[in-house]
Amino acid sequence: MENFIFSNPVKIIFGKDTISRIGKESARYGKKALFVYGKNSLKKSGFYDKIIESLSKNSIECVEHPGVKPNPVISHVREGIKKAKENKCDFIIAAGGGSAIDESKAIATGYFYEGDVWDFFINKAKIDKALPLITILTIPATGSEMNSGFVITNEETAQKYSAHSPFSFPKVSILDPETTLTLPKEQSAYGASDAATHLLEGYLTTQNQDCEITDNYVFAVLKTIISSTERIMKEPQDYSARASMMWAASLALNGIQSLGYKKVQWPNHAIEHSLSALYDIPHGLGLAIILPAYMRHNIQRISQRIEKLGREIFKVKTAKETVREYEKWLTEKLQLKIRLSENGIPTSEFEKISQNAIELISMWGMGLSKKEILDILKLAQ
Amino acid sequence: MENFIFSNPVKIIFGKDTISRIGKESARYGKKALFVYGKNSLKKSGFYDKIIESLSKNSIECVEHPGVKPNPVISHVREGIKKAKENKCDFIIAAGGGSAIDESKAIATGYFYEGDVWDFFINKAKIDKALPLITILTIPATGSEMNSGFVITNEETAQKYSAHSPFSFPKVSILDPETTLTLPKEQSAYGASDAATHLLEGYLTTQNQDCEITDNYVFAVLKTIISSTERIMKEPQDYSARASMMWAASLALNGIQSLGYKKVQWPNHAIEHSLSALYDIPHGLGLAIILPAYMRHNIQRISQRIEKLGREIFKVKTAKETVREYEKWLTEKLQLKIRLSENGIPTSEFEKISQNAIELISMWGMGLSKKEILDILKLAQ
Repeated sequence: MENFIFSNPVKIIFGKDTISRIGKESARYGKKALFVYGKNSLKKSGFYDKIIESLSKNSIECVEHPGVKPNPVISHVREGIKKAKENKCDFIIAAGGGSAIDESKAIATGYFYEGDVWDFFINKAKIDKALPLITILTIPATGSEMNSGFVITNEETAQKYSAHSPFSFPKVSILDPETTLTLPKEQSAYGASDAATHLLEGYLTTQNQDCEITDNYVFAVLKTIISSTERIMKEPQDYSARASMMWAASLALNGIQSLGYKKVQWPNHAIEHSLSALYDIPHGLGLAIILPAYMRHNIQRISQRIEKLGREIFKVKTAKETVREYEKWLTEKLQLKIRLSENGIPTSEFEKISQNAIELISMWGMGLSKKEILDILKLAQ
Repeated sequence: MENFIFSNPVKIIFGKDTISRIGKESARYGKKALFVYGKNSLKKSGFYDKIIESLSKNSIECVEHPGVKPNPVISHVREGIKKAKENKCDFIIAAGGGSAIDESKAIATGYFYEGDVWDFFINKAKIDKALPLITILTIPATGSEMNSGFVITNEETAQKYSAHSPFSFPKVSILDPETTLTLPKEQSAYGASDAATHLLEGYLTTQNQDCEITDNYVFAVLKTIISSTERIMKEPQDYSARASMMWAASLALNGIQSLGYKKVQWPNHAIEHSLSALYDIPHGLGLAIILPAYMRHNIQRISQRIEKLGREIFKVKTAKETVREYEKWLTEKLQLKIRLSENGIPTSEFEKISQNAIELISMWGMGLSKKEILDILKLAQ
């Protein structure tokens, strides 16, 4: 078991009718908020009105910054920073999924930086300060509500890059599972694939195998994601299943999921980022395309890890069966199309994708070659 | 799944050779520490010298407060407060198991209080401030290194009571599994029984059963405790097993273990506190005596919970078999004597124990009658 340092200061407020606490929680961080969210779903669902009502009751002024895209883009982040500066916002409220939260984290750090916020993503500058951030999660998936990382796409350079800092943990995250009861099936599926991959990146890439507690943690959260998603797909209004899934997705990337693992890498995320950057593929779908291919590509090298996963989660014995079961979960239970060809990406694009991916992979210091990426893409064809 | 609020700000530094970080971590909290520990084991092991060396390198002055008892007592807490006040200590360092940490938490709160520190334990006063606390854990068991609770025995009144506050989380906890390599077998066993009970109190007493994620979390941590303890009993020097056990014990009582459960109670702890208060029984042993009897007493009422536990952990079907397997783990694997009679407590004492327990139970607002306590004691006879 490898040495580690762990610290996660996020205050989680979880459950029914918790959105009405946003005003009171906000009052601790100032009088004026930049309110970051996506498109119409927040308004349609009525949660927008609840948020505004609670804020106004607590005399919190709101500067709105709607229009966050599913793969949030740097131009919109820059607009948000400008708005926050012009209005001298004290803090940020993000409402939505990982996109709204990640964009808010970027705005929060860019607020105090003289240069261009993209500098943080290309390691040109280091984050040393951020506006306080409160999140209201409505899509369980990225875990961003309980960690310090964030991912933004630079649409000019077709780079989907990440940044993180100890200043980027949300102060408070409100998780009301009722906000997810109306989530479309494909969104629920993308979220499940995303959260599962967060657990499996560390589990599959660790260079040590003597970390029983973290393996068991990974299996516990993954089991919950699989079984609660199955219930959700059958009955989208199942509050218990939605609640278990929502908390499981936070636990899948709050740091605990890889403690004690050795030299964890993020190969599936690195390759997926290229799919999102180049073709605007939803993140969870991109991961569903890449992860089975990644496992197949490495089936000899990490056979023990894949077999253990199979035994614990799918009650099968071999690595091959395990990958097949994972694919079956994605295609049959989550109803995802996990081939690149099914998603309109022909083999002629593979060179471009691997070239895009290799830049991020080299920045992340991972030992994955362009040939290996091409091989993985072929397996996902 | 019940609504919850979760926040755990403790910074965990985990792994080999991490004790040498105590000086640097301490320097953030001041120049003078009250150094709280037990008896000779810390000195014999050489860890005492390592701590002092690191503190002195960072110019931290140390006021020593050794002699913490396994069931720490209020008189020694009062001495510690006096010492800390006289020497104007900036913060506290606890080195040892839950006893040293719990006593330190009590001293940290008593430091700022004009009245007697026992007031916090009988709800006569509310904690609103505490000295910063850094812990160095050497016995995985209580989870106190990663939570905000603490338990002290008032030896004059024979009351073993608890207190907690948001100010009582340690700032930093250093967990070096190497400190546990020389832990005597019975100490390892007490720790395992303690940590397992922390998971099972919530799991068994919750009034809802729709909290899949937390059930799975409980099983994951419990599985790890059982399997790593088995390895430790065979090979005490097994670093991986010691490391998994150490982190599992923290995860067993850092708050996550009961999130979403409804009206969790602590009946086994309440009754055990009387055994410790009256007969100075080690806490983990006391819990090993009470918990199987508690399960037997409630085998009809909570049969579904016990059966689920049996299926997940012991691969058995019925509630009866589950309790038997749990007892077998305690007696055969941990080599504990789990009958009251084996521990020198005759039936003639049961009236006294139940009278002692009922006071704490009523203070904790639990619906357990004196007759029920007597019935549980008889089952543990």
